[in-house]
Amino acid sequence: MQEFTHDAPPGREQAVTDEVVASFAGAPDDRLREIVQSLTRHLHAFAREVRLTEREWAAGIEFLTGAGHITDDKRQEFVLLSDVLGLSMLTVAINAPAAPEATESTVFGPFFVEGAPEVPLGGDIAQGAKGVPCWVSGSVRSTDGSPLAGARIDVWEADEDGFYDVQYAGDRTAGRGRLRAGAGGEYRFWSVRPSPYPIPDDGPVGRLLAATGRGPMRPAHLHLRVEAPGHRTLVTHIFVAGDPYLDRDAVFGVKDDLVVEFAEHPPGTGPDGRELDTPWASARFDIVLEALE
Amino acid sequence: MQEFTHDAPPGREQAVTDEVVASFAGAPDDRLREIVQSLTRHLHAFAREVRLTEREWAAGIEFLTGAGHITDDKRQEFVLLSDVLGLSMLTVAINAPAAPEATESTVFGPFFVEGAPEVPLGGDIAQGAKGVPCWVSGSVRSTDGSPLAGARIDVWEADEDGFYDVQYAGDRTAGRGRLRAGAGGEYRFWSVRPSPYPIPDDGPVGRLLAATGRGPMRPAHLHLRVEAPGHRTLVTHIFVAGDPYLDRDAVFGVKDDLVVEFAEHPPGTGPDGRELDTPWASARFDIVLEALE
Ligand SMILES: [Fe+2]
Ligand SMILES: [Fe+2]
Repeated sequence: MQEFTHDAPPGREQAVTDEVVASFAGAPDDRLREIVQSLTRHLHAFAREVRLTEREWAAGIEFLTGAGHITDDKRQEFVLLSDVLGLSMLTVAINAPAAPEATESTVFGPFFVEGAPEVPLGGDIAQGAKGVPCWVSGSVRSTDGSPLAGARIDVWEADEDGFYDVQYAGDRTAGRGRLRAGAGGEYRFWSVRPSPYPIPDDGPVGRLLAATGRGPMRPAHLHLRVEAPGHRTLVTHIFVAGDPYLDRDAVFGVKDDLVVEFAEHPPGTGPDGRELDTPWASARFDIVLEALE
Repeated sequence: MQEFTHDAPPGREQAVTDEVVASFAGAPDDRLREIVQSLTRHLHAFAREVRLTEREWAAGIEFLTGAGHITDDKRQEFVLLSDVLGLSMLTVAINAPAAPEATESTVFGPFFVEGAPEVPLGGDIAQGAKGVPCWVSGSVRSTDGSPLAGARIDVWEADEDGFYDVQYAGDRTAGRGRLRAGAGGEYRFWSVRPSPYPIPDDGPVGRLLAATGRGPMRPAHLHLRVEAPGHRTLVTHIFVAGDPYLDRDAVFGVKDDLVVEFAEHPPGTGPDGRELDTPWASARFDIVLEALE
């Protein structure tokens, strides 16, 4: 049967793609079939466009293997990979709210932790995270302008050294908390002023950034997730105006509407009567959630 | 700065892709830049085409995480993933030899092990692997027809239960060996007749196959890797004519030229004088390596 009849290469390559796409034709779930067939076509188009060599294919396998092995319950290299390839922000864009007045979304990131401590309105989420004390306040409203009393707000942030609590040894919780908006939709809390930080760059994703001449830094930000009944859940950041990394965020998360002035204050009395013997900061950020039909 | 000015969605999505592609513009290595920019474009095109939801994105992260965690030095789920998506066979096609008379390549697969035992010409690679004894012979020649004396041949195969040695507990080596072609380019060895087998399907890739209505089976085959100085290394299979899975190989590895008749013989004297008290099989497969300029 060794007949040595070969098609021309482009026809053979297309035949492989066609065969794989056809192999999924019997998938019982329409949506899954659509996804795997589209993934096959685009993945193959990539390999054909660059004329992928076998050595490069092996390097890709090694990259994914390394990413898998560094990933655990506190480190998520595949999320970082999606982030630095812009797939995370593209997914945010694809799923953006229809209402133009709703607050914009950005990347979720790999540092959210379920079960953060409940903090009363006006309480302190720092819980020992190092940094300049920072008062954050604002309102949560619906797209029709009505206040969303009791909206649930999750906040998480890195400390002034650029690390989230989960990046330290031990199980300390710091720089994260959950609060509820008041009767008029208002919210307020103490935190620390956000600092720029590098995404974890001691793994395959960090090596990819280094090899491609990209930096690992993210501009300073506070993470917010805001939920209210009958409304689309918002995942977003508050960015700090003037941050040097706003135009080169390693994960492409910056949107102009999310950049806020952080005011600097000398030691003295805070807006809630707290006495501060160090300088402190403050920012205001109003939130609009999209009402679902 | 919350101005609530949003672009139309398609423009915003394209802007994300453009920003990511531009971020790689300074990559010092031209080839790496070409690869990551093309990967970004095609990955984004996939997400946009299917309108990837955030939940589906998260399922993808979970899939890759599971693949990473099941992968170790004996199990390679990312190779299986590449195989079942046809990326491995497409890479083979992209890198196919230019000479039409050269033996065709197919997937390398995840079961090759470096350092397999050396076996003399005519020796037995089974080393305790269960199955019907099988005599395999043929020749190794260059594209100009000249015999390739001393060509190095690696052989590896599953046993009659469909398992490679590395899939068993312990460190036994069986069903694999390395031999050298003789002075006239001839080769011959005892092995076991290949059996169809499922690719390992107890991980994320197996669940993907099940969810999409695809089977995990591969038609019976022997793996070969053949090397000779001045020639392109060949990675291929010998498939068994008549196998029920030839038209539905889970990894798309079958090529007509690689399908060979395996003869069945009653107990008696083998071609090398060995006395067999059980039925045995035999196959012949001639190999042509592409000469490099
Ligand atoms: Fe962050
Ligand atoms: Fe195999």
